[in-house]
Amino acid sequence: MGVFVGVVVPLTDAQGAKASLKPLQQLVEEDMASVNRVILDKAISDVDLIPELARHLIKSGGKRLRPMLTLAAAKMFGYGGAGHIQLAASVEFMHTATLLHDDVVDESDLRRGRKTARILWGNQASVLVGDFLLGQAFKMMVDVGSMGSLEILSNAAAVIAEGEVMQLAASKNTATTEDEYLLVINAKTAALFSAAAEVGAVIAERPKAERAALRSYGKNLGLAFQLIDDALDYSGEKAKLGKSVGDDFREGKITLPVVLSFRRGSEQERDFWRRTLQEGEINDGDLELAIGYMTNHGAIQDTVERSRHYGAIAYDAMAIFPDNKYKSAMLDAVAFCVNRVS
Amino acid sequence: MGVFVGVVVPLTDAQGAKASLKPLQQLVEEDMASVNRVILDKAISDVDLIPELARHLIKSGGKRLRPMLTLAAAKMFGYGGAGHIQLAASVEFMHTATLLHDDVVDESDLRRGRKTARILWGNQASVLVGDFLLGQAFKMMVDVGSMGSLEILSNAAAVIAEGEVMQLAASKNTATTEDEYLLVINAKTAALFSAAAEVGAVIAERPKAERAALRSYGKNLGLAFQLIDDALDYSGEKAKLGKSVGDDFREGKITLPVVLSFRRGSEQERDFWRRTLQEGEINDGDLELAIGYMTNHGAIQDTVERSRHYGAIAYDAMAIFPDNKYKSAMLDAVAFCVNRVS
Repeated sequence: MGVFVGVVVPLTDAQGAKASLKPLQQLVEEDMASVNRVILDKAISDVDLIPELARHLIKSGGKRLRPMLTLAAAKMFGYGGAGHIQLAASVEFMHTATLLHDDVVDESDLRRGRKTARILWGNQASVLVGDFLLGQAFKMMVDVGSMGSLEILSNAAAVIAEGEVMQLAASKNTATTEDEYLLVINAKTAALFSAAAEVGAVIAERPKAERAALRSYGKNLGLAFQLIDDALDYSGEKAKLGKSVGDDFREGKITLPVVLSFRRGSEQERDFWRRTLQEGEINDGDLELAIGYMTNHGAIQDTVERSRHYGAIAYDAMAIFPDNKYKSAMLDAVAFCVNRVS
Repeated sequence: MGVFVGVVVPLTDAQGAKASLKPLQQLVEEDMASVNRVILDKAISDVDLIPELARHLIKSGGKRLRPMLTLAAAKMFGYGGAGHIQLAASVEFMHTATLLHDDVVDESDLRRGRKTARILWGNQASVLVGDFLLGQAFKMMVDVGSMGSLEILSNAAAVIAEGEVMQLAASKNTATTEDEYLLVINAKTAALFSAAAEVGAVIAERPKAERAALRSYGKNLGLAFQLIDDALDYSGEKAKLGKSVGDDFREGKITLPVVLSFRRGSEQERDFWRRTLQEGEINDGDLELAIGYMTNHGAIQDTVERSRHYGAIAYDAMAIFPDNKYKSAMLDAVAFCVNRVS
């Protein structure tokens, strides 16, 4: 049974997985160094702005979770070629392009505590360099020559963009249902996690059922990851780590903690959510009030519970594979995602 | 010899080509109707904003020159499948995505006399729907399954985006050389024309030399097309057709007529170009002054001459093919591009 135990930061969960990304990082360390070289290499251009901006993005140091999935999946299946490096780099480029465009659309000033590219180089450069990275991503995929991977990743690109438009159209609607919200994060986050994991199986030419397992693993890991992200934005844990709490609130983003609080709240509370998130009228103390309402309704805790639900599905998706170090590390990554405090 | 006669709007040129797009339009009429169906079909989404915005773009009625090249090339080689329809639709989607992002980057209010999508639906929607169309374009290409076409079109996508960044970085620089400007329009315009024509030969599985011919035809047609566009922006002919003259000037775009006028002008004239285009300080009467300088230096006429030079190369590129109605129509399209007044 893929149910995680209900403590906040367990070192191991019911399946014995460690809540750590380290095993995965160590297993793919060498390949990831190759991915980083490819990324820098493909961001080379006579147009100085491109490598400059690319270096900024690379240095801003995300966890590189998505390309790690591609690498680990391919390796788990004993893939011996080099195509997984290029595919992993493509996945990261697609992700980076999305971030660039997202920050323009959301008018974000900071990402991971650093100034966004649009603040440093402007919206125009962010839009265009995003397009360039997307173009390079497709070129790399085509180079690899795996038609199956191309299908999966090009489909993900369309789904991600559709999800972004969906979110834009639905944004500021406090009456969004949980199902509607799930549609958005399925497209925005889970689609790329899913594609990243699946192409690892595809390039290793694994049968349909195994591809489906990786696809399901990636998708549910993505959902779990995103929901914890949503919860963390209203959680004090983040503040402890020097990150800012309440970014989503200030940007009027409707995330699951809001969806749950709005539906469970009184009419007076709903007025509060409409005023702050729909109309954008936020006063001093409103963030604390929001966190208070969420706490009263158990909205943050239940968002974490929902995340565990998807984590459990990801876990079970991998159960068809015999035990091996890659599988084990990928399960640890699930435990990390649902239990992470950063 | 591929030299066009030096009159302004000849009905036929030295090679006997008619300056008309009609033959090409008529030959691909049926296929283009299929392309239009595919375009509307692929813009279907539960997210209302996407089909709404797509319909706006489709109705704004460009000439659809790029997809026509794909269709005509494939047909010239007797291609009997249906892949050319999807490839042509992909080409148009790539073009449309570029326009959407361009209008955001250039802060354009009007395109072809109609309000731009960013004015009607906002910058955010324009960025994201552009991404969606690009994603759909790649999905369609992958569906067709021609690895060669994928290579060419994904490469074009990266080159186009790089060219846009280049233009952004170089923008407002009145000291841009003609060679530098050519690099920009090679990337921004010629790359997609070139890819559009070449994939028609690729999907018909033609040998290397014939693919190269189509590639060269498309590239040089694109250059010719863009240069005439640049010239028209400072030409009274455009005003006669109810279009606005001087858009490029007001947006501070450095195009070939400016490059030539700046280099050929006095120091006082160079100050004028720097004030108006680099510093953006444009007063009443400045557009007329600009056109006056250009006329004095023969800059508009020479831009048209340069366009004819590339048109001639496009013409010669096709010379290896035996006469046939498709070839003839594609040559008429060259004559149309270099002689068009709209």
